[in-house]
Amino acid sequence: MTLKLYVDRISPSCREVIIFCKLNGIDFEEVTISLSKHQQLSPEFQEVNPIKQVPAIMDGIFKLSESHAILRYLAFAFPGIADHWYPADLYKRAKVESVLDWQRTTFPRGPASYVFYSVSAPAVGLPLNTKAAARTEKNLIASLATIESVWLQKKGRFLLGNDQPSIADLSLACEIMTLEIVDEKDRERILGPFKRVLKWLDDTKNAMEPHFEEVHSTLSEIKEKLQKQRNAAGSKITQSGRKPDLQSKM
Amino acid sequence: MTLKLYVDRISPSCREVIIFCKLNGIDFEEVTISLSKHQQLSPEFQEVNPIKQVPAIMDGIFKLSESHAILRYLAFAFPGIADHWYPADLYKRAKVESVLDWQRTTFPRGPASYVFYSVSAPAVGLPLNTKAAARTEKNLIASLATIESVWLQKKGRFLLGNDQPSIADLSLACEIMTLEIVDEKDRERILGPFKRVLKWLDDTKNAMEPHFEEVHSTLSEIKEKLQKQRNAAGSKITQSGRKPDLQSKM
Repeated sequence: MTLKLYVDRISPSCREVIIFCKLNGIDFEEVTISLSKHQQLSPEFQEVNPIKQVPAIMDGIFKLSESHAILRYLAFAFPGIADHWYPADLYKRAKVESVLDWQRTTFPRGPASYVFYSVSAPAVGLPLNTKAAARTEKNLIASLATIESVWLQKKGRFLLGNDQPSIADLSLACEIMTLEIVDEKDRERILGPFKRVLKWLDDTKNAMEPHFEEVHSTLSEIKEKLQKQRNAAGSKITQSGRKPDLQSKM
Repeated sequence: MTLKLYVDRISPSCREVIIFCKLNGIDFEEVTISLSKHQQLSPEFQEVNPIKQVPAIMDGIFKLSESHAILRYLAFAFPGIADHWYPADLYKRAKVESVLDWQRTTFPRGPASYVFYSVSAPAVGLPLNTKAAARTEKNLIASLATIESVWLQKKGRFLLGNDQPSIADLSLACEIMTLEIVDEKDRERILGPFKRVLKWLDDTKNAMEPHFEEVHSTLSEIKEKLQKQRNAAGSKITQSGRKPDLQSKM
């Protein structure tokens, strides 16, 4: 029975699971659960994941949610997954776990929050929030500084000084890629100072081609759609004399 | 060489690591890194954990941070740890991972945030924030409802319907115990409706005695200290006619 992935590619946690399967030749059926259409709340999806979140998987009758738990499971459950993804060695694995957990405790929704407050909130009928965007940018920059100075090291192209990527590289890179949605000048301001992070992102993309780029192409589509919405809102200003963020508050 | 735990018992993530070691007969030296004295920022501690967070451990020359990563490591690295803590079985372990990750993605700082905004902010010179407390209470209640209806099941006393606790029970229980710091009536309002959660908390405490209670005794001390500070602030109001939250903003 084919593995089913319940996902929406707008979510970095979903993209990482899809890319992992593609990179490792794991057959799967992609079932889109559209977050913008609130399909995660449907009774049918709640049979798969009562937590009402994506990603979720069904492997035969086995159901699982939470992307990091899913990646760990897939690395064990399918044959032939290279050890570097989730090392068997006690010490190497513990370090990978440490990065995965740091991502969840310290970096939670860092890039996603910034993108939400700075560009995508109007898409769900909420105003842009420059104050919240500035606050999340500050946290995001502090976290990027930790990646630059602690998790990336002089030796090795990948996190923890490794020569090959682990699931922690995949997950963190997918999360940072969310910044592709914001304007180039904002992305450059945030990521530009972190030369080591930028090189690692390139190395990670290259190590995971063509799947990394293919799965992330959804971000260009989202960026374009948001731009059109902003342009439409801009023409409304001309008509009404109101700013778009005030309009969407109403 | 004895395992060193760098911890502050005010943090639930630290308490879970201490309790795990005590329950499993793992010898350790407890090195207190006082968060209220900002000792996590000292150059000495940064040699142990450049991320500047507790808990962190040193096992010989091996350094590790992030409490869930530490628990997984300890369960592997020390002999004789019972399987129920972190099951070897692929499916059972994946489910434990799912709860651990859910705790980090959906429940992040739930009880701690509520406690901060509703009682402990003045201890670090910030005002109480009833609006933020109300918002975090709402999120906290939604998460407790998920524990009640999804993670706890009719069969089995512990999370996922298990008969014995896993590291997910330990970690989640330590986090919820943070609510011991707030007034009894607030704690009752939040936890009272969740009968299954309350029973599970009791079962978890009982399964982990005497260490669970001993390590959590620090919370009563904190509650008493905060109460004294509030009383002192209250007497200042009488003298100045100002509310304490306005005073501490100044």
